[in-house]
Amino acid sequence: MSATAEILSELETLRLIDPHTHINPHSAASETLADILGYHYYTELAHSAGLPREQIEEPGLDPREKVARLVPWLKTIENTAQYSWLLEMCQVFFGFEDTRITESNWEALYDSSRQCMQGKDWESTVLDRSGLDQVYLTNDFDDPLTGFDTQLYIPCLRTDELVFHLQKSDVRERLAKATDVVIKDAGTLRQALAFLFEHFITSNAHACAISLPPEFAPEPISELRADAALSKVAADRPLDRSEQMDLSCFVFWSLAQQCADRNLPFDLMIGVNRNVYEAGVYQGQDLYDKRVSLIQYRRLFNAFPQVMFPTSVLSETSGQELVSYAWIFPNVLPTGHWWYSNIPVFIEKDCRSRLQAVPRTKLIGYYSDMYKLEFALPKFAMYRRILARVLASDFVADRSWTVEQAVALGHQVLRGNVETVFGR
Amino acid sequence: MSATAEILSELETLRLIDPHTHINPHSAASETLADILGYHYYTELAHSAGLPREQIEEPGLDPREKVARLVPWLKTIENTAQYSWLLEMCQVFFGFEDTRITESNWEALYDSSRQCMQGKDWESTVLDRSGLDQVYLTNDFDDPLTGFDTQLYIPCLRTDELVFHLQKSDVRERLAKATDVVIKDAGTLRQALAFLFEHFITSNAHACAISLPPEFAPEPISELRADAALSKVAADRPLDRSEQMDLSCFVFWSLAQQCADRNLPFDLMIGVNRNVYEAGVYQGQDLYDKRVSLIQYRRLFNAFPQVMFPTSVLSETSGQELVSYAWIFPNVLPTGHWWYSNIPVFIEKDCRSRLQAVPRTKLIGYYSDMYKLEFALPKFAMYRRILARVLASDFVADRSWTVEQAVALGHQVLRGNVETVFGR
Amino acid sequence: MSATAEILSELETLRLIDPHTHINPHSAASETLADILGYHYYTELAHSAGLPREQIEEPGLDPREKVARLVPWLKTIENTAQYSWLLEMCQVFFGFEDTRITESNWEALYDSSRQCMQGKDWESTVLDRSGLDQVYLTNDFDDPLTGFDTQLYIPCLRTDELVFHLQKSDVRERLAKATDVVIKDAGTLRQALAFLFEHFITSNAHACAISLPPEFAPEPISELRADAALSKVAADRPLDRSEQMDLSCFVFWSLAQQCADRNLPFDLMIGVNRNVYEAGVYQGQDLYDKRVSLIQYRRLFNAFPQVMFPTSVLSETSGQELVSYAWIFPNVLPTGHWWYSNIPVFIEKDCRSRLQAVPRTKLIGYYSDMYKLEFALPKFAMYRRILARVLASDFVADRSWTVEQAVALGHQVLRGNVETVFGR
Repeated sequence: MSATAEILSELETLRLIDPHTHINPHSAASETLADILGYHYYTELAHSAGLPREQIEEPGLDPREKVARLVPWLKTIENTAQYSWLLEMCQVFFGFEDTRITESNWEALYDSSRQCMQGKDWESTVLDRSGLDQVYLTNDFDDPLTGFDTQLYIPCLRTDELVFHLQKSDVRERLAKATDVVIKDAGTLRQALAFLFEHFITSNAHACAISLPPEFAPEPISELRADAALSKVAADRPLDRSEQMDLSCFVFWSLAQQCADRNLPFDLMIGVNRNVYEAGVYQGQDLYDKRVSLIQYRRLFNAFPQVMFPTSVLSETSGQELVSYAWIFPNVLPTGHWWYSNIPVFIEKDCRSRLQAVPRTKLIGYYSDMYKLEFALPKFAMYRRILARVLASDFVADRSWTVEQAVALGHQVLRGNVETVFGR
Repeated sequence: MSATAEILSELETLRLIDPHTHINPHSAASETLADILGYHYYTELAHSAGLPREQIEEPGLDPREKVARLVPWLKTIENTAQYSWLLEMCQVFFGFEDTRITESNWEALYDSSRQCMQGKDWESTVLDRSGLDQVYLTNDFDDPLTGFDTQLYIPCLRTDELVFHLQKSDVRERLAKATDVVIKDAGTLRQALAFLFEHFITSNAHACAISLPPEFAPEPISELRADAALSKVAADRPLDRSEQMDLSCFVFWSLAQQCADRNLPFDLMIGVNRNVYEAGVYQGQDLYDKRVSLIQYRRLFNAFPQVMFPTSVLSETSGQELVSYAWIFPNVLPTGHWWYSNIPVFIEKDCRSRLQAVPRTKLIGYYSDMYKLEFALPKFAMYRRILARVLASDFVADRSWTVEQAVALGHQVLRGNVETVFGR
Repeated sequence: MSATAEILSELETLRLIDPHTHINPHSAASETLADILGYHYYTELAHSAGLPREQIEEPGLDPREKVARLVPWLKTIENTAQYSWLLEMCQVFFGFEDTRITESNWEALYDSSRQCMQGKDWESTVLDRSGLDQVYLTNDFDDPLTGFDTQLYIPCLRTDELVFHLQKSDVRERLAKATDVVIKDAGTLRQALAFLFEHFITSNAHACAISLPPEFAPEPISELRADAALSKVAADRPLDRSEQMDLSCFVFWSLAQQCADRNLPFDLMIGVNRNVYEAGVYQGQDLYDKRVSLIQYRRLFNAFPQVMFPTSVLSETSGQELVSYAWIFPNVLPTGHWWYSNIPVFIEKDCRSRLQAVPRTKLIGYYSDMYKLEFALPKFAMYRRILARVLASDFVADRSWTVEQAVALGHQVLRGNVETVFGR
């Protein structure tokens, strides 16, 4: 058996914690194949290949019909990594035995998968088969966080809306409702945030998280400027660009302060531009501008040495910066392979550079970013194969490590660091 | 036989369409070795290694003497991919049997190649030996497009001059002469462009094309602003920077509209700065600024969903953006490996990422960009070897595809998509 | 024996010139293990993993105690390339036989290494065992350059302070003292620089060198503007941002002119931001902004065709630009793998792209950047292994080169070009 195979085989026995997902804990697993094929990775690729959005997003569309419309386009995307996940899910979870999902075999697959998914233990079957011990969520700030097991589904406070959309009255109304605080100035804002953090931490939250546009460059804002922006917002008066930036920076900085005060990691997902492709399918409209640098976060990383920042970058051109910043900043932690960077060629390069230059205690290898539970299995499997290969080549072959040493490093990156960084 | 070798052997049987070249259809093949060694890839490398430009570009220089001057410098560039093309051309076309072209063997090569090139069927010999069914051209807007077989040499409307140099009186004079329209305002400009498109399409043109500087960010310009800029130009008054940008944007947008109206793909070649090295050899003066993003084309891609944009990028740092934009935008098509990115290490990375994340129907694998027919053979051969290796590793080995499946994907990328995208 | 092994074995016989280091020629080798573990690559990684700076930099700290504090953190960084250098040094120089340096074996290592280092020929032992014929230095402009063998330790004029800190009175005082010229205007500045160059060249200097921040974009400055900035500086009046830029550009341009006049290569190390992580350990505070382009040096490269610019870039995203600029500019020479790019994954990519597209006469393969002599051995060894592998795969396997041809190319890149480019 090759070193790669030996390492992989060991890594496959490891149970996992998935530190970033979009799972809805009230409906974690899929109910039909449409929940899987409806994932934006498939709808956007099928649309990119030619399927009109209107056909995918027709109101009231029956799940079976949705799948029927998507299947003919699968042949155009069968080369993609995303398709390979689909195939692996169907093979592992639903006993699918063909090598392609086609117009002539999808109906049997639809039916057999439906039967699996209707089994009363489907959710725990998937968790078990996937080796998942815990699944981190992405919760709106006003999520009640009730009605699910917060030891299994770990809450995480998502803060994009607070930082970038507080000027919208519905966001402020939801915030007031959730916290019983009406935002008028810096003080009331901090009060509301304190309430949210208390609520989340009480409910076993393990992280605060945000996705950030490429042009964002956080800096501390004076109370005076924050008050000015917030009083305008409270009066429903529009902010100019500079006031909007003040407000975003102030909220962001206050969130970091909360993380510092409460010893909560702050996940940064850097570099996404929203709604670039306006006519794209649901969740298939965002892209990026690679002209972003971690130097934009210099003041933040210096100001909050006590906050851990598990950091993901969207552009592969940011990969080396992430390694370099983590190389000297104790609080910068390279994390996962996000979205457009979550394909083998970029994972491999990032995996190698991180393992070659960042302390092993600081690497959070992977998260699935999934919307439905079934996706953790093929996504982690993809990552694990690459990790095994990198460990075999860069450590066992090039540096004479034993397979045991390589496996231990793999364990730490896959699971151990998730526990130490996010464990409270 | 390894999977790579099996796949390569199959791909080598495929006949090709070369979707982007600078071939002069009236003199497509080389006449002496100087036509080959005079390619800027060799003159600029020899110059970079130390050969003064004046020796290369001496007026009235005899072809044999030109080769005599370049040959001694070949030993300084024999490591380059470009040199490997030269060697392969000489071996395949002229029966050259040595492994180096040196001061002691070049004269025999010169003579034997001269004899080949003087054969009356040389052009068709090259086409046939290279497996070329069609060769796309790059034509000036006022090219009469007569005197050659437009079923073999497919016209393509090159539009750089219209977009970036319309303020020059000689360009406008040529345009007036070609179209019988004198440009005075937005209306007459559109009239002239319509004439050009009609002329090109009637002559079997399959594409409109342009190369674009890194700072270009096209946006729609109002009729009013276009009229203002055009009336100044018509009066031979200089434009300020902002008016110049208005004019370029307006012409560019009008070209995209023509492509939409006439169902013509619009080739975008993004990222070149002209004349960076002012004292460089002919065609060896251009470089780039990697600080460019496809976000600059956001409005264009949204505004013209019906136009296919086969897109090339000059900087390898733009490779992932191209993949990501093509992943969700139906009209963005990753195309070839352009110029400074046309060496194995960058081709491999781009080839892998495109195959892993873009619908297979949207990938235009390669074009030669050649000036003389002989270059298609070694350039496509280089690409094909990399493609075969990527198919063998990422698909046959990692994803258990059969060789047949891998070959079919290779065929589609090498030829099939050229036909569907550019076929009218 | 594989081609890689054959090539490597040949390359290992080659004696070296290290064209860029920070060696102090009066204390070139280490005296205790603390000199090795005190290298910022280890202190910054240990700090990044959690060791407080105060513990590392406690004033008056005993070397043995310093090592005792660092050793427990080595297990957190044993995955890094930097750690592999440490291990190789200990194994080769001090007979260390374990595969890890731990809390239970470090004291024996400390003692045995101390014994080696106290041997009276330790410096020459290291030079000899490392195969080093010459070691280039990085000298302050006011270094007397006396008291050491300038045929072995080659002086190099480091000019960062002159270009970026001339507004500081202590820099000007040191300059006045070194040159007997008081700077008041462009003329006196040029006089002082001429004096420095004369001094350095007389002392066998082979290069002028500078590290440059990402935003720097040198351009010629008029005598008038230079005089204005310099007269303010002479009067100890603060410069505004634009005057500061004028001053930096003027000094930089004058240095390039001196290099032109005296036929000295000018090493450019492009892209570092100083003091980004303010609370970092000594020399572990600098990072970068990847948004930099070589287009910023366009005017420089055009203005000084007679000056060779061995160029290093800090960000791997600049690697292709460096290749492309070297491809057409005769005076741009890709050099080494600097700092955050000096790990295998980035070295491999840069090594491949340079060998595939730049004349072989222009490539300066590697320098160690070391502060203590012992580091040349593992760093060059790392590079040599990668180089051997690239030569075997891209040249022997892919292009049918003989091993001898590949070795010759390796020799040229590792040593030959250092002699031709820096040999005076």
